[in-house]
Amino acid sequence: MQASEIRVFCPATIANVSCGFDVLGLALDSVGDEMVVRKTQEKGIKIIKLTGQDLPTETLQNVAGVAGLALLAAFDYNGGFEIEIYKKIKAGSGIGSSAASSTGAVWAMNQLIGKPFTPLELVKFAMEGERLASGVAHADNVAPALFGGFTLVRSYQPLDIVKINTPKELFATVIHPQIEVKTSDSRRILKTTISLEDGIKQWGNVGGLIAGLFTEDYDLIGRSLEDHIVEPIRSILIPGFDSVKQKAIEAGALGSGISGSGPSIFALSKGEVAAKKVANAMSEVYDKIGIDYDIHVSKVNAEGIKIL
Amino acid sequence: MQASEIRVFCPATIANVSCGFDVLGLALDSVGDEMVVRKTQEKGIKIIKLTGQDLPTETLQNVAGVAGLALLAAFDYNGGFEIEIYKKIKAGSGIGSSAASSTGAVWAMNQLIGKPFTPLELVKFAMEGERLASGVAHADNVAPALFGGFTLVRSYQPLDIVKINTPKELFATVIHPQIEVKTSDSRRILKTTISLEDGIKQWGNVGGLIAGLFTEDYDLIGRSLEDHIVEPIRSILIPGFDSVKQKAIEAGALGSGISGSGPSIFALSKGEVAAKKVANAMSEVYDKIGIDYDIHVSKVNAEGIKIL
Repeated sequence: MQASEIRVFCPATIANVSCGFDVLGLALDSVGDEMVVRKTQEKGIKIIKLTGQDLPTETLQNVAGVAGLALLAAFDYNGGFEIEIYKKIKAGSGIGSSAASSTGAVWAMNQLIGKPFTPLELVKFAMEGERLASGVAHADNVAPALFGGFTLVRSYQPLDIVKINTPKELFATVIHPQIEVKTSDSRRILKTTISLEDGIKQWGNVGGLIAGLFTEDYDLIGRSLEDHIVEPIRSILIPGFDSVKQKAIEAGALGSGISGSGPSIFALSKGEVAAKKVANAMSEVYDKIGIDYDIHVSKVNAEGIKIL
Repeated sequence: MQASEIRVFCPATIANVSCGFDVLGLALDSVGDEMVVRKTQEKGIKIIKLTGQDLPTETLQNVAGVAGLALLAAFDYNGGFEIEIYKKIKAGSGIGSSAASSTGAVWAMNQLIGKPFTPLELVKFAMEGERLASGVAHADNVAPALFGGFTLVRSYQPLDIVKINTPKELFATVIHPQIEVKTSDSRRILKTTISLEDGIKQWGNVGGLIAGLFTEDYDLIGRSLEDHIVEPIRSILIPGFDSVKQKAIEAGALGSGISGSGPSIFALSKGEVAAKKVANAMSEVYDKIGIDYDIHVSKVNAEGIKIL
């Protein structure tokens, strides 16, 4: 008999990862939401509880609700679901808060109805949640939340997601300064054209990063964590960005950049000891400036969403 | 005692490989030049023989001469070299004719003087030959000629070259229609800006291609062989391009595109039988149009330049 209720961990995610704007992402291990999803006789989706963040619970206003409805619309099912969301990821922090909720919802629903949908189909449903959150149905947070590890969105039309090898000693440090940057704002300031020269640098770095991940060459990973296109523009919205990045690298990080559309800043390091040292160095910058922050140190999570 | 003379095979190469403009390249196995490089007491470089193509033999007008002088300028050596070049690659064909000569010269010289230079340093010397040939010191043909297999130029400043895994069953078909397209012309028609949207597609495909090469996923390699940026513009200069590409894919090629700056068109296939079938399909198009052509089927060469 299938379970009628499931409790899942929905990981936070870092999208873009410097060079991979709109295509690369990775899942975190120790940072994420919890959700309980339960079958109901009543049709449709109800968000019956949402703690930890002040977010709408009306189905059509909630990313998990919208993603869940997208799944239901593709499935002949004489019932519905109720969802409890225990948010630990702050909305607007740039570490995939909306993706965690929308992906968690559809992943859990799929488990409860006998897994009729492929992971790729679940990504498509969850992207509807992303469309509600930011106006754009991007997949670079949804994909790593669902597949775990590093993921590449090779193409959006048709959607093609590639799981990338994740070196075992790769740790992420993420610092979230308590300032608000809306995803929609941080997309709007981007230019719609780039120079061919910067483009060449960017695809060279994406190639280098993917090669470094497969060969577990940490130096190459570090050298490839460059972004000549988005970071120079978006970093203007993040106070202290240049100092935080510089201190992270001085403290031994392989590289550092903006997490998703910010304002969180991530760094990747080889090993947990290094990642913690980097966390101290990043924290000191905001301690000095006097900006409150959350900070996380996490292994890169190779499995994605999981049952608790 | 070191040899005073060496005969080398200098492979032809396919640069760009659809999505990797200016960064990706691969070496061919059965297509290439031969060179004899010999130590002399006289200082400097002399091209004493050049067969197969009508190319200048004055040292400063010849890519092997210029590359060789770049090496000599970095080395305290009380002598020089004479070079015989047996061209089998046609100049201007788009399969790395100039890179084969300049890379072959510096690789052979380095062997004869006890290998004081690293492969990366040799790439830099050979790039001076590329600067003479096309006005731009690009490395995307030189790197695969020297390292073999697939290579990625992650960065030009500083120069950073990454060797990529080459799946064993990967074969290339290259057809060279006998029309002239100058590298300098085919660079000039490119736009200096691209849309961010096309950029995202391009770095998604580069990531997919690198991942496909490491995981030996031939389907993924095929899906990633797309170029939304350069091919739509440059293919205008190549008569029959769209038909040749379409017929190659219909015949079973994983993908097809412009080799370097053209006019050669390449296709990649899984296995030699498929690559030969693709060769027939590509040939038929030029047979019908009535354009003369050379056609090559070759394994991807994993070792690069070698001593004969």
